[in-house]
Amino acid sequence: MDYQESWDHCATLSTSLTLSDISKACRGLSDFQGDETAVLKVIGDSKQKGYKRVCMPLTTEKWKERWSKMCLLPNESSDEDKESASKAAEAWRLNPAFQRDEVTITRLDEAEGIIVMVSEWLELDAADDWVRHDAEIALKQELAYASYLNIHTVILPSPRNRDHVASYARIVNSCLTKFPYIYISIRLPIYNPSVFQPSSPSSPVLRPTSPPMHASLGSSSSIAPSLVISESEQLPASNSGVSLNATWEMWDLIRTMCDYNMKLTLTLDLSPALPTTLGVLSKWAAESVRHIFLPASTFIANVKGYPHRPMIILAEVGEGRHTRGGENAYSQYVRHLEKTSPAVQAAKKAGTVENFAQGYQDYLQAPLQPLMDNLPSITYQTFEQDPIKYMQYEEAMFRAFLDHPVDEKLVVCVAGAGRGPLVARCFKALERSNREATVIAVEKNPNAFVTLQERQIKEWGNKVQLIFGDMRLIDVPEKADILVSELLGSFGDNELSPECLDGAMRFLKPTGISIPSSYTAHLAPLSSSKLYNEARSTKTEKGLETPYVVMFQAVNILSGTKASADGRCGPQVQECWEFEHPRRDAVLDSQGLPFTNSHNARSAKLRFYIPHAGILHGLAGYFEAVLYGNIGISIHPHRKDQVSKDMLSWFPLFFPFREPLYLPSSSELQVSIWRITNDRRVWYEWHAESFISVPNSAGTSEELLMGQPFSGSFSASSSSFSSMGAPSPLVDSKEPAFLDMTRMNTNYAGSGGVEYETVKIGHTSLHNAGGRSSWIGL
Amino acid sequence: MDYQESWDHCATLSTSLTLSDISKACRGLSDFQGDETAVLKVIGDSKQKGYKRVCMPLTTEKWKERWSKMCLLPNESSDEDKESASKAAEAWRLNPAFQRDEVTITRLDEAEGIIVMVSEWLELDAADDWVRHDAEIALKQELAYASYLNIHTVILPSPRNRDHVASYARIVNSCLTKFPYIYISIRLPIYNPSVFQPSSPSSPVLRPTSPPMHASLGSSSSIAPSLVISESEQLPASNSGVSLNATWEMWDLIRTMCDYNMKLTLTLDLSPALPTTLGVLSKWAAESVRHIFLPASTFIANVKGYPHRPMIILAEVGEGRHTRGGENAYSQYVRHLEKTSPAVQAAKKAGTVENFAQGYQDYLQAPLQPLMDNLPSITYQTFEQDPIKYMQYEEAMFRAFLDHPVDEKLVVCVAGAGRGPLVARCFKALERSNREATVIAVEKNPNAFVTLQERQIKEWGNKVQLIFGDMRLIDVPEKADILVSELLGSFGDNELSPECLDGAMRFLKPTGISIPSSYTAHLAPLSSSKLYNEARSTKTEKGLETPYVVMFQAVNILSGTKASADGRCGPQVQECWEFEHPRRDAVLDSQGLPFTNSHNARSAKLRFYIPHAGILHGLAGYFEAVLYGNIGISIHPHRKDQVSKDMLSWFPLFFPFREPLYLPSSSELQVSIWRITNDRRVWYEWHAESFISVPNSAGTSEELLMGQPFSGSFSASSSSFSSMGAPSPLVDSKEPAFLDMTRMNTNYAGSGGVEYETVKIGHTSLHNAGGRSSWIGL
Repeated sequence: MDYQESWDHCATLSTSLTLSDISKACRGLSDFQGDETAVLKVIGDSKQKGYKRVCMPLTTEKWKERWSKMCLLPNESSDEDKESASKAAEAWRLNPAFQRDEVTITRLDEAEGIIVMVSEWLELDAADDWVRHDAEIALKQELAYASYLNIHTVILPSPRNRDHVASYARIVNSCLTKFPYIYISIRLPIYNPSVFQPSSPSSPVLRPTSPPMHASLGSSSSIAPSLVISESEQLPASNSGVSLNATWEMWDLIRTMCDYNMKLTLTLDLSPALPTTLGVLSKWAAESVRHIFLPASTFIANVKGYPHRPMIILAEVGEGRHTRGGENAYSQYVRHLEKTSPAVQAAKKAGTVENFAQGYQDYLQAPLQPLMDNLPSITYQTFEQDPIKYMQYEEAMFRAFLDHPVDEKLVVCVAGAGRGPLVARCFKALERSNREATVIAVEKNPNAFVTLQERQIKEWGNKVQLIFGDMRLIDVPEKADILVSELLGSFGDNELSPECLDGAMRFLKPTGISIPSSYTAHLAPLSSSKLYNEARSTKTEKGLETPYVVMFQAVNILSGTKASADGRCGPQVQECWEFEHPRRDAVLDSQGLPFTNSHNARSAKLRFYIPHAGILHGLAGYFEAVLYGNIGISIHPHRKDQVSKDMLSWFPLFFPFREPLYLPSSSELQVSIWRITNDRRVWYEWHAESFISVPNSAGTSEELLMGQPFSGSFSASSSSFSSMGAPSPLVDSKEPAFLDMTRMNTNYAGSGGVEYETVKIGHTSLHNAGGRSSWIGL
Repeated sequence: MDYQESWDHCATLSTSLTLSDISKACRGLSDFQGDETAVLKVIGDSKQKGYKRVCMPLTTEKWKERWSKMCLLPNESSDEDKESASKAAEAWRLNPAFQRDEVTITRLDEAEGIIVMVSEWLELDAADDWVRHDAEIALKQELAYASYLNIHTVILPSPRNRDHVASYARIVNSCLTKFPYIYISIRLPIYNPSVFQPSSPSSPVLRPTSPPMHASLGSSSSIAPSLVISESEQLPASNSGVSLNATWEMWDLIRTMCDYNMKLTLTLDLSPALPTTLGVLSKWAAESVRHIFLPASTFIANVKGYPHRPMIILAEVGEGRHTRGGENAYSQYVRHLEKTSPAVQAAKKAGTVENFAQGYQDYLQAPLQPLMDNLPSITYQTFEQDPIKYMQYEEAMFRAFLDHPVDEKLVVCVAGAGRGPLVARCFKALERSNREATVIAVEKNPNAFVTLQERQIKEWGNKVQLIFGDMRLIDVPEKADILVSELLGSFGDNELSPECLDGAMRFLKPTGISIPSSYTAHLAPLSSSKLYNEARSTKTEKGLETPYVVMFQAVNILSGTKASADGRCGPQVQECWEFEHPRRDAVLDSQGLPFTNSHNARSAKLRFYIPHAGILHGLAGYFEAVLYGNIGISIHPHRKDQVSKDMLSWFPLFFPFREPLYLPSSSELQVSIWRITNDRRVWYEWHAESFISVPNSAGTSEELLMGQPFSGSFSASSSSFSSMGAPSPLVDSKEPAFLDMTRMNTNYAGSGGVEYETVKIGHTSLHNAGGRSSWIGL
């Protein structure tokens, strides 16, 4: 485990300056006082006010005037005016360059550490071909000038036109290639506020500050200018999640067309009032947000928390929107919110997962393979620090001992003793339950076995019998009543606990029990640009074909918390399969070993409801284990706090997909996962398909052969479904139960007599976007 | 141009033999006559009947019996029976092997050239985990045995269970890796006939021949066997295209999960009666069909033609289903259908595109770059063979000459004369129109210029003035009335005709005209496994980032022939942009040249309606040019026969996508394409997004903030749309007109008061699946 740099809990605060702030400073300067400039003055002032960075526009109104005069002549202009503008524009296109008074900054010292706002009036997604073409040239001119001044971060104006956002994206992609040292951040409101004000004037964030633009430059007949950008050019705004998703959808398109370029980030603009539900906000948690743009007007609402650790840009703070507190009140309030946030509080408190995990967030680790590899002592030490896990094991053993007849002799076998933590807990439990037992400890790691011998001499004496060797091969002198093991991985069986315990079951009396007695694997669909980029940038060829252990941070679970209304889809996190020890009805050879590993093959087909559009980057994997009775351990996100709160030993598993899969709002995701076994190896394969319900009256009637009324019915055929019927013995589940599938027939049809059918809309596969985990050797 | 092997027009005919055919032959054998075996006898008989290949089952009923006894014990079996079956199964799983009487073939000479049918009763997609697991082992056992006998082609039974077809696909993929020398073909009916017979017994092709199977082998609690495979487990069958697409959807999933493996093919089973419309059939044209399975019962209906050149397997021919004609009637009838098929007829007739194109079908060629490269004489010769193209040019010149005032002196300039075909046609047109003219021929290829000199000496004398050099740089002694050029590529402007003619416009008098006077580029969305595989297997890094010239064969145009009912989508093939010569209102420098190449940038956003689900692999590109008046040349699929029938010079362009995009039935595809120019280069970039209409009452109401009635409206903002309003001067278009976009508001809402909204469901992009053409140097 490598640690990332430690970080403090405060976001960097930046201020956003306007052209008028600079003009004011300019007036304050008594002519030119040596090297002092208006820009240096406002930057100095901002730093004195406690801002670490300053964000400002690169160009002045003069540039906007010249560009508009060249490129946006009104239609009623005279032919002479048109021709002279066209010639000026052609000359500019040939050699794009600024005049001195068209830019705010000219010197390296002015530009140092500045974040630059690209001209807000540039319409890279204008409906008019010529406006778009000339906006691209102007953008590249600004970036070239910023490069010249050693500026590394620029913020682009928000895309405004869903219909031409592909053009915006194409231009950004071209700039990322052309300017390799510039980070480009796209300013974007968290949703389009205009969907709630259909007839009011457009918000300044989503609309150009300039008046509606007119193009006149000699368009050929195939480039008919469509002059005014208006609401009517957008996708239909309606009252569902689609409109709330519109700005995210634009970001997704830009990010995808730029192939998840690491230099492309997001400046989340919180100018529109925040929505009151979390669904719209949570998707941004999975994106590479670098800045948060927070105008003073936002402070009407409470800040709902923000993703990761972006820089916060405070705007309009000097405009006196709030009478009390003055300019500093804004930054003080942001600091207050940070300090009181539950996540920050938890991270500061020792013993919490948040505190333990610092530096591990979103860091990909290869899962341990303790069967194949012999672990180093430091790894044992890390995991032995977990107070909860061993407390649960002790409690499970304690209760099992109590349930054992007092007069019968007790034999306990610890299979895979490591450095001895379970042996130690076993003795504590024996003491608490006032029992005596023969304790046998089996370990195959020769190095750890030395530690065990050391502890036997110093602590345990001959109360414990140490046996060296692989539990699948060795024999024990005496059959056990209780077999205790801690072979579980983040996904339950992924460290080959089932295969190892198949071997160790030979040590058990026919009536004996295993701690754990069973464990289950669970999955949820995950979105995370960061994890996707991390996984595909791993050097190994298997980068996107193997699961990783990850402490999730910049992620978003895509499945809805509720099961779908029609009962087709299960809850947010769903169970794949279960293993039980000892196995019932096992077919064994004369040595008590299975002939093949076929019985440890598993598969599951799960259905998730996706309420909000998102990109599927992978699957989150969790486990839950029953140790004994109702004592268990769990990393299932909805149950872990009830079962084993503050347990630290396991982060979830991340199964990546090779190609991200777009999931629309209100869609259904079907996930297949297999645990495949043969005589030498065990591995996982996974695959996903997406579906959506459409009214079956739409469309293909031209192809109709003969009619048939809607008559499909669904019966749960997947093994995973049937196993979900049984409630967890650990938790009285509070999440909505998996609905009766037979309800589908009555509920699946929507209102108004329209019938629906499920239509496949996409898939990812083993090769295109699915995955196959590396083989684990047996 | 490389030629592929020439091929005849006949498909290979094969016969499908059954176990009873073999038993019959066995009875006919008087014990063992030397090396003769029953299998050799039936093969010999089949060859005598004219069949080139024989298809037969690999295993006998004995194997089915043993497997079923081990793996499918009925639930009511005694515990002893269960245990003994379980032990036998485990022993078999450990060492899967056949007994002599469980296979039909044992010798290399029996197996030579045989196509093997894998046991039809194997359910690789059974709902029960154990049945699937054991079917996988049995399949691999059969493939291993086939490998041993040097058999190269096996046909797998059809997938039957949409819910577990991902498991089927995973197993096939695993076999393709494990058996590198075996071609695996999936038998699949063209659609699921059971959708039309909801309550009748299942068809023999889609259902196992065995009775419903029961599993009993010690399932753990998480593997609850779901015993009977029934209709109810399939996706809801309804009266739209979804059900007709179901078998294709299964094939698509298998093919995708196997990553378009070249060794995976399709055996199209025509047992179900053919549907009466082409939409369901045409999608199979884009797939790698290797065999067509044609039972005698199919002959009730007429065969509707079949894709490419697969082998045809005739089945049940010996069963006397038709009283007249006997067994040979079937193969004779297939031969008759082949001979009378319009495609075969055309291919046999000299002068047709079909005849000319033989060997070029689906062969990817890099587009010519005549500006950058100097073409070899053989290339000129190939294109000069086109009788139609030069006839059209001659006719255009003839009419232009007639329209020129008789008393005015006429100057004609051929810009890019090549080896002189246009010069020769110019003289013919002058003769026909009884005019005299100064003819100037400009050519920059120094090698072709030698040929021109040769022809000047031998044919033309001083009636023609030859000028060597690049038309963008040289000068002519006299301004022309008519400038004639043939610089067009398959997509119109892709060989840089606009840029070259910008230079040559200096040669034209102010009133002069250009032949061609304009040209347009057109696109349609394309599906083709073959072209996708060909493009990605090209050695260059740019394999999927450059367009190709291709004579399409195994392709399917995905867009519907009709515009969508709501008017949002245009016709099947849509216009992108236009170039006109001479340009109006051009801004030029003192030499008459443009300052920049900005005016030749273009972009288009097109909307296609997709009636049937399919995989988008790329875009088909076409051009149409107006030479003069209503004389033109066109490769637009719906117009070429009206404009310039039998013209041979251009095959369409294929723009590949890097990742295939799944398009559901009744979806909308939005395609963006850009022609990008700078001072040194020209290139294309392309991108696609898919959308579907969903009722906006469905789903995300939990996220609702405030209501707003459906109020979106669409106005055509793309330049491409406005240009489509004008009808082609060449054709009174018979395809449905592009509907008025304003109709959307009234028609977009469906029946029953449900409102619809358009939801994005996927995209392909420059990087994930879009493309960027190689730069063309200016």
